[in-house]
Amino acid sequence: MEAKIEFVPAGSITSPAGFNAGATCAGIKKGAADGLDLGILFSEAICATAALFTTNRIKAAPVVLSQERLRGGRAMAVVANSGCANACTGEQGLADAVEMARLVARGMGISPEDVLVASTGVIGQRLPMKLIRDAIDRVAFSREGGHELAKAIMTTDTVPKETAAVVRVGKSEFTIGGAAKGSGMIHPDLATLLCFLTTDAVVDVDFLRLSLRKAADVSFNMLSIDGDTSPNDMVLIMANGRAGNEVLGQGSEQAGAFQQALDQVCIYLAKSIARDGEGASKLIEVTVGGAPSMAEARLAARTVVSSPLVKAAVHGSDPNWGRIMAAVGRSGVEVVESKIDLHIGDICVVREGKPVPFSEGELLRVLSDREVPIGVQLNLGAATATAWGCDLSEEYVTINSQYMT
Amino acid sequence: MEAKIEFVPAGSITSPAGFNAGATCAGIKKGAADGLDLGILFSEAICATAALFTTNRIKAAPVVLSQERLRGGRAMAVVANSGCANACTGEQGLADAVEMARLVARGMGISPEDVLVASTGVIGQRLPMKLIRDAIDRVAFSREGGHELAKAIMTTDTVPKETAAVVRVGKSEFTIGGAAKGSGMIHPDLATLLCFLTTDAVVDVDFLRLSLRKAADVSFNMLSIDGDTSPNDMVLIMANGRAGNEVLGQGSEQAGAFQQALDQVCIYLAKSIARDGEGASKLIEVTVGGAPSMAEARLAARTVVSSPLVKAAVHGSDPNWGRIMAAVGRSGVEVVESKIDLHIGDICVVREGKPVPFSEGELLRVLSDREVPIGVQLNLGAATATAWGCDLSEEYVTINSQYMT
Repeated sequence: MEAKIEFVPAGSITSPAGFNAGATCAGIKKGAADGLDLGILFSEAICATAALFTTNRIKAAPVVLSQERLRGGRAMAVVANSGCANACTGEQGLADAVEMARLVARGMGISPEDVLVASTGVIGQRLPMKLIRDAIDRVAFSREGGHELAKAIMTTDTVPKETAAVVRVGKSEFTIGGAAKGSGMIHPDLATLLCFLTTDAVVDVDFLRLSLRKAADVSFNMLSIDGDTSPNDMVLIMANGRAGNEVLGQGSEQAGAFQQALDQVCIYLAKSIARDGEGASKLIEVTVGGAPSMAEARLAARTVVSSPLVKAAVHGSDPNWGRIMAAVGRSGVEVVESKIDLHIGDICVVREGKPVPFSEGELLRVLSDREVPIGVQLNLGAATATAWGCDLSEEYVTINSQYMT
Repeated sequence: MEAKIEFVPAGSITSPAGFNAGATCAGIKKGAADGLDLGILFSEAICATAALFTTNRIKAAPVVLSQERLRGGRAMAVVANSGCANACTGEQGLADAVEMARLVARGMGISPEDVLVASTGVIGQRLPMKLIRDAIDRVAFSREGGHELAKAIMTTDTVPKETAAVVRVGKSEFTIGGAAKGSGMIHPDLATLLCFLTTDAVVDVDFLRLSLRKAADVSFNMLSIDGDTSPNDMVLIMANGRAGNEVLGQGSEQAGAFQQALDQVCIYLAKSIARDGEGASKLIEVTVGGAPSMAEARLAARTVVSSPLVKAAVHGSDPNWGRIMAAVGRSGVEVVESKIDLHIGDICVVREGKPVPFSEGELLRVLSDREVPIGVQLNLGAATATAWGCDLSEEYVTINSQYMT
């Protein structure tokens, strides 16, 4: 069924009907953007809810709690803070997360079971519960509050990441909104950040789970900043049904349109995160084509975009394409060296495994751009995948060698 | 059988009897240490020879050639250059490697089949064969030439890496020498550098292969600088039998002493490489104990030592131990958070998964040292493994963003 998908100008997590949000300065995070470090997202109706959580064996307390609460596939609110991850904090940490949810539930007059919790920041420190207790009561909700929430979850992010898209398909119209954070400790293979997605569409919860997994696979799971992953990662989608469309389920007529829009929203957010990677000055987009299987295309693309040497070369606009070849070679995918073509931007630097003479000035122009596309054609099969990352700069090191101090 | 193993002062690859080496300036590498960029190692007698090669699917021409030639398990000479990797150079690259070996063989009056070739440097450029032809004739051999060879294989290395150890066991005495290079594109899971090892011991070639694999597993395969691996990696051992000991084979009386000494030489070289990692100011030594299996101990140790965030924190002496916990958690090994103890140097920062109060001043002292030991106790089993790496500095990025330009 043909669908029209349009991004909403200044769209946010509260663009879909029936969602409200707000944020405040609890004082947990030093130097917070606009002073915001605690935010709450609230739906006027109970939501079908699905989520992906970190695969790290060390799970933060809010992850343990939210994972448990989402067994039933429903939620009404999310409370999130930055500045403290509430990870490696033992039973006390879990009790703190439970209290955080209870305080929000009490304020809103809903069940604590319907409140999810997310935290991001330094690992191994207790939440400052006194500050949080005071702050939760201060949060004021509005239909424009999505922007505040996007700011409240930022850590080393330099800009908030948020968007929304309206889908018109058949007689239905619904909206998907999203806010995400994460500029360090970001790597594929799991939900690698905090991302909250909202929609006013009526969606069956099983289909919601499936479509979130699919969307993450082409977006957040194809994103790498530094190869590290966090105990706090969480990607969450809440569907409150306010759009009143026919229920979207697997095989339903408008399911494809929903998936397509969700993919686009997630890819937009993933690219925003890559572009704002810690210390990053460039977005790197690696597309691997001609792979024997999708798994191999994905693996090769992610390996290239994760390579510190490729990232450093792009940072310095250094035409060191051999590092891209070396990364493809070590990725573990099937490779026949004499079949590989390699493009940086629109410039072919390797054809059938051998160097092609190119204009250094032209290549420098491509490498100096804010977005550097790298195309690897394996010429072995039909599978194609794209991964996103950023350059590795001196500033990344500076940021991460002084995070706590 | 009890053995005495002693490191030789100023030991080198030519410390074992019957090995000679020399090097010259061919002009391949800009800014070469002492101007040396081409070296030759030569044994007076044919050697039982074993090697480990890169597992990268993109293999440099010298790797393809040497791997082929080593099928028979024998060699007499190695020619090595820095400044050009002769990788991604197609059939021409292979022809150039073959010619390099032939020129050396002709000069020494030996069979080209007994000459191995190794290259390191920029990928995707042809060897400057005219310079190499002129240079090979100029190499002068001596019993002290090992030091020159160690310099000739350096790229971004700031110091040559070499050593030798004498083994006295029963009535036998033999020597093992080694030279290695590699300060970037270094990661475990294969022979990740150039390393030439020599011994005057009489060694059965099957045992030599086995013991080299074992020694690499506790040294070079536990070493990570930046997670990238190279098409040129090669670890090579030549045994010329000049010591006249009873032949060392699997199960022979003195085999254990040989293995022990080889392990020590390889660990010494691996640590030297880690200490001299690109831009490094500190050696990081991660020991994971109490793992359910050796494979898991190794994996966890390597994951922690490879983590960009751990490396950056150590660089800045930032007491961000949560990143170590997060790296252990994402390593894929079995972990029970509430059982983990974590030490940085002699300071316990986590016990049974929970933060332990510590003196920040004391921890800063440990983190500011030139060697930073990290101890992770999983308390699940009996396996222990150690991995080595270095801090991640702004200088690493600077070096690698301007490698070619």
